[in-house]
Amino acid sequence: MNEHFYAVIMAGGGGTRLWPLSRQNRPKQMLRLVSNRSLFQMATDRLEGLFPADHIYVVTVADQATELQKQSPNIPAENYILEPMPRGTASVVGLAAVVLQKRDPQAVMAVLTADHFIENVAGFQQILISADQLAQRGYLVTLGIQPSFPSTGYGYIQRGEPLDESSQQDGFRVVKFKEKPNEELASEMLRRGDHLWNSGMFIWRVDRIQEEFRRQMPELARILDQIAASWSTAWQTETLKKLWPQIKPQTIDYGIMEHAEHVAVLPGAGLGWSDVGSWDSLFDVLPGDENGNIRIGAMHLGVDTEHTLVCSEDPNRMVVTIGVKNLIIVDAVDALLVCPRDDAQKVRELVKLLDQNGYQLYL
Amino acid sequence: MNEHFYAVIMAGGGGTRLWPLSRQNRPKQMLRLVSNRSLFQMATDRLEGLFPADHIYVVTVADQATELQKQSPNIPAENYILEPMPRGTASVVGLAAVVLQKRDPQAVMAVLTADHFIENVAGFQQILISADQLAQRGYLVTLGIQPSFPSTGYGYIQRGEPLDESSQQDGFRVVKFKEKPNEELASEMLRRGDHLWNSGMFIWRVDRIQEEFRRQMPELARILDQIAASWSTAWQTETLKKLWPQIKPQTIDYGIMEHAEHVAVLPGAGLGWSDVGSWDSLFDVLPGDENGNIRIGAMHLGVDTEHTLVCSEDPNRMVVTIGVKNLIIVDAVDALLVCPRDDAQKVRELVKLLDQNGYQLYL
Repeated sequence: MNEHFYAVIMAGGGGTRLWPLSRQNRPKQMLRLVSNRSLFQMATDRLEGLFPADHIYVVTVADQATELQKQSPNIPAENYILEPMPRGTASVVGLAAVVLQKRDPQAVMAVLTADHFIENVAGFQQILISADQLAQRGYLVTLGIQPSFPSTGYGYIQRGEPLDESSQQDGFRVVKFKEKPNEELASEMLRRGDHLWNSGMFIWRVDRIQEEFRRQMPELARILDQIAASWSTAWQTETLKKLWPQIKPQTIDYGIMEHAEHVAVLPGAGLGWSDVGSWDSLFDVLPGDENGNIRIGAMHLGVDTEHTLVCSEDPNRMVVTIGVKNLIIVDAVDALLVCPRDDAQKVRELVKLLDQNGYQLYL
Repeated sequence: MNEHFYAVIMAGGGGTRLWPLSRQNRPKQMLRLVSNRSLFQMATDRLEGLFPADHIYVVTVADQATELQKQSPNIPAENYILEPMPRGTASVVGLAAVVLQKRDPQAVMAVLTADHFIENVAGFQQILISADQLAQRGYLVTLGIQPSFPSTGYGYIQRGEPLDESSQQDGFRVVKFKEKPNEELASEMLRRGDHLWNSGMFIWRVDRIQEEFRRQMPELARILDQIAASWSTAWQTETLKKLWPQIKPQTIDYGIMEHAEHVAVLPGAGLGWSDVGSWDSLFDVLPGDENGNIRIGAMHLGVDTEHTLVCSEDPNRMVVTIGVKNLIIVDAVDALLVCPRDDAQKVRELVKLLDQNGYQLYL
């Protein structure tokens, strides 16, 4: 086991497509959707045995930190890194790298998501161990997911040759990172068989990623250097608050990965991974009853009801459906959503519409 | 104006087809579905100008009396007649007849429903005036409703010849009362043009209806005579409570009307009448918005939403629908119903199912 291996959970996200459960002050990772543990709790649970608790960092915004710490109290308070405001994943990674570099110049960091579901925890830990080994050799490793359908909701990674000709277990070179495709392109990529979903999880040595920041995002690197100089001094918070707003929002994918050197992709197959990106994705993650119905926290009586998701925040409310198929019903305390599974992706636009129509109370 | 004309509102009903708004302790007539006045309040409102308040009687059960009196405080408390328990409309009419006969032996009573909607109040009052005139001539008058579609949810009345050959305004003889038909029969009756819906509203002289009770329901008549003897004495309540349970439940339609003498039917056309018998009936009663959507007490944002009814008990809850058509969504405080308009009639069976499955709390 590599004693220089650290996990950095990015937990600052929102997730409007799970409205009305996900809200501005209650983002997706805090929701107990898949089990009685929230997605964030599951994200910390699945690191057990692989990382000691003090090797797990959480980057989040101040608003969310208290609730997250309450949800996973095993992670030391000093391992919470607070962004003054969201500035994209590039700055999150950069800040975490600064903190880890100060602690352990040989650190390998696994950048992990807080709001995805992974069914096969043992498989996930195994792939992280492989990724750590590649990272120690200097690779920027990205975790790819073997696609199970032609999704238009994920970015893709086209893999090239195996890194070691003798074995595919060590991962592949990356030909190209690709944005979310249209349906035609997604089907084409699935057919070719050499494309993986971009999971948004990365593993690399801190010195390697900092090298890429200096080369590809020199402006951000300079700001991060100033933050690094003040870190663990009396000026830490003041410096962060002053410099952070100057950062141009950017993702690590666009900012670094697309043009990085020594990039490798490890294909994750059989992980049972889902980004739980929208209500319909829960049908992939949760087992339905004999009629394919899924209940999340809901007391539900369904007559002639099939392939319907019923989620309620109030377990004492009686939800009754008659003669419905492929419907999503989400019963929050102050809001109710009813829409067909096929329209689940439109919830994001709906939240914008609420904003535009003066319903800020419900965002 | 006939100073002997009285109204008797039958307000003891339930109405499980409007679950989850209608409940055992909150029957249909108490609901504010069509306006900010409940159906019971509308039933009393539409008598204004035609009956002085002290000529309006309400027959109900003890459980409901307090709430009804709160809803329509203009009706004197002494005009509330309490059934110890429901025993069908025949006994309701018989008891009201006893009370009215004591007060005014020349009384004409209009037996009216508490839980129907009538849009055209002036037309309704006009037809009651015509009915009163027929009743004074000794007819048992029933109000028929000109059918607008082949309903299988109502009983029908087949009309015969006009009572006066010179005019049809005075109503028609009745050929036959008919039970709720199947679809084929309903279509046939609509095509023939000589069938009317049975509104369940009747107008007659008290002495005439008592004559029919004695002739057709002698057992009930004897019980009513005993109750009459005790009425306005110290034994009134005790006698009622002792005798009422002995009554065999029966409707006025089967018990009296089918074989009564001198029956007439007055066709009500253009009244905008509806029995508001189920959630889908509200589409006939309430105007929809430009997409045919109906909102009852609900804050609702509909995207690609058509011909959908959204009813909420909590005006602060945000109800959002995306991509739904012909759906009924009823959001009560402790229960939620989602079903297509076509399945609205199944709500009654659903309530039975709740009962059978141990959900008595929600009945």
